[in-house]
Amino acid sequence: MIEAAAERLRGHARVTPLLNSPFLDEIAGRRVWVKAECLQVTGSFKFRGGWSAVSALEGDGGVLAYSSGNHAQGVAAAARAHGREAVIVMPRDAPAIKVANTKAYGAQVVHYDRATESREEIGAKLAEARGLTLIRPYDEPQVIAGQGTCGLEIARQTAEVEVDGGEVLVCCGGGGLTSGIALALEEAAPSFRVRTAEPEGFDDVARSLAAGNIQSNEALSGSICDAIVTPRPGELTFPIMKRLCGPGMAVSDAEALRAMALAFLRLKIVVEPGGAVALASALFRGDDITGEDVVVVVSGGNVDARIFAKAIDTYGDAA
Amino acid sequence: MIEAAAERLRGHARVTPLLNSPFLDEIAGRRVWVKAECLQVTGSFKFRGGWSAVSALEGDGGVLAYSSGNHAQGVAAAARAHGREAVIVMPRDAPAIKVANTKAYGAQVVHYDRATESREEIGAKLAEARGLTLIRPYDEPQVIAGQGTCGLEIARQTAEVEVDGGEVLVCCGGGGLTSGIALALEEAAPSFRVRTAEPEGFDDVARSLAAGNIQSNEALSGSICDAIVTPRPGELTFPIMKRLCGPGMAVSDAEALRAMALAFLRLKIVVEPGGAVALASALFRGDDITGEDVVVVVSGGNVDARIFAKAIDTYGDAA
Repeated sequence: MIEAAAERLRGHARVTPLLNSPFLDEIAGRRVWVKAECLQVTGSFKFRGGWSAVSALEGDGGVLAYSSGNHAQGVAAAARAHGREAVIVMPRDAPAIKVANTKAYGAQVVHYDRATESREEIGAKLAEARGLTLIRPYDEPQVIAGQGTCGLEIARQTAEVEVDGGEVLVCCGGGGLTSGIALALEEAAPSFRVRTAEPEGFDDVARSLAAGNIQSNEALSGSICDAIVTPRPGELTFPIMKRLCGPGMAVSDAEALRAMALAFLRLKIVVEPGGAVALASALFRGDDITGEDVVVVVSGGNVDARIFAKAIDTYGDAA
Repeated sequence: MIEAAAERLRGHARVTPLLNSPFLDEIAGRRVWVKAECLQVTGSFKFRGGWSAVSALEGDGGVLAYSSGNHAQGVAAAARAHGREAVIVMPRDAPAIKVANTKAYGAQVVHYDRATESREEIGAKLAEARGLTLIRPYDEPQVIAGQGTCGLEIARQTAEVEVDGGEVLVCCGGGGLTSGIALALEEAAPSFRVRTAEPEGFDDVARSLAAGNIQSNEALSGSICDAIVTPRPGELTFPIMKRLCGPGMAVSDAEALRAMALAFLRLKIVVEPGGAVALASALFRGDDITGEDVVVVVSGGNVDARIFAKAIDTYGDAA
């Protein structure tokens, strides 16, 4: 399914570059290879899964998605390219840029309150009432397959720079990207081991992996890493992660912001807080990592100017 | 020479991506293809020319370069990789990040005053006294050949997206990148026409092209676009540009800053002011451009956090 998704994505999704910098290597104490999914169409890896799912649909009906913003844009852009209607359920506190872009891609946006309402319930009701196909953000085989195409590229690009194994740190919300990459690497480059990265206090996946069963987050708001705060790992994604992934990692908001500043300074890419937690893990939690090389996936770059300016103002010179 | 340089650069320089965004296309009124040289090693295209020149040297002597910062980093990084000493002459007002990085690549930095001293004279004296090979920033055949490798990639990458001609806007200081790309495209994709982009008030190349002979800038400081402020086009580069390039363009500092904010918002790349003038020309001076597609080279991303933060704070949301 991942290889079939890669065929459908060809010429539509970007093959994002694998970047590095001697300055980051020095901080991390090993070579750091950054898969820059912030440079993906719509500014995050979510376009892969969105395109994979929409391009696999039959008929010409509309689609519905719920999302804090990146899946929204991925699905909205894919739907528009396929001539399909898109309705997106987004939390009221989603970053302004993500809401604006989702609308600009032609989607209708319906808001909900992240703390008191269930996006799953709202989405299911809307889908049924209007005859839309729900595209779940991670518990959806074609979405996982689409995200897995990132793993196929990691296998190919690491081989090109003669890196033949190591840990692959992936920013993890519901687990779609993590499980997709883990499945792709299991087949294409089994000497790599995938690990999850999350914000401290919202490390449901790390705790679930440690416990061996699904654990939930106590809070669903309060992290700057909005993109990857989800209630719990997915029903489809967790068994994959449990089978294939190493222990999960977690970093503070300050570490995520400092990683954003270092990516600005050393790689010239724009990274959103939730997209920076894997890089932050590689840079600041190196004692928990093994091997001479580490691959990190920078999962998105859709960050409001104010937050980015603050991150680089605070950490951009000293970093 | 360009193809030979491309061989020497293989595996050392990055093949930078060709990015686009429907939001930028809408502003420009045509499709805009962004060759993101800010993602090049050392954060600018200058690594190409630096590597090309250093890798073509015989013996094992040191090298000397004068530079406002990007050529400095390119030469310093290339020299270190080749085990050669590097001495770099930099203006006292060069951005702090460029000075710090040049030193971090192991080079010795010698400062001069951009308004009152001649970097050419200082460089020539130092090179003779210490037996160093001078690597000029643009009037140097192997440097022009190295920068031309960017043109070979543009020819290949535009063909991949089925763009078969149009204008190619290049941020222009002394003309090394412009003339290299123009020579590469003359052979590899002659349906493209290269044009220069400069800051208003420092448009020596545009005026030289219009006059048919070399004109100088009146001032050498006072633009935010430090990387591309040079006294006049080069002796080697100007005849190439005169033969191959269309009329030059110029934009204001405010337009360059707004283009930086749009690149942040829509492409997730970090662009320095001087590296944004070609994109600004495509976005805001579209009436002077012909064709359905325009290629712009974003030449570098080495910008101090304070300036970048101000650009996106001012223009990042409204942009």
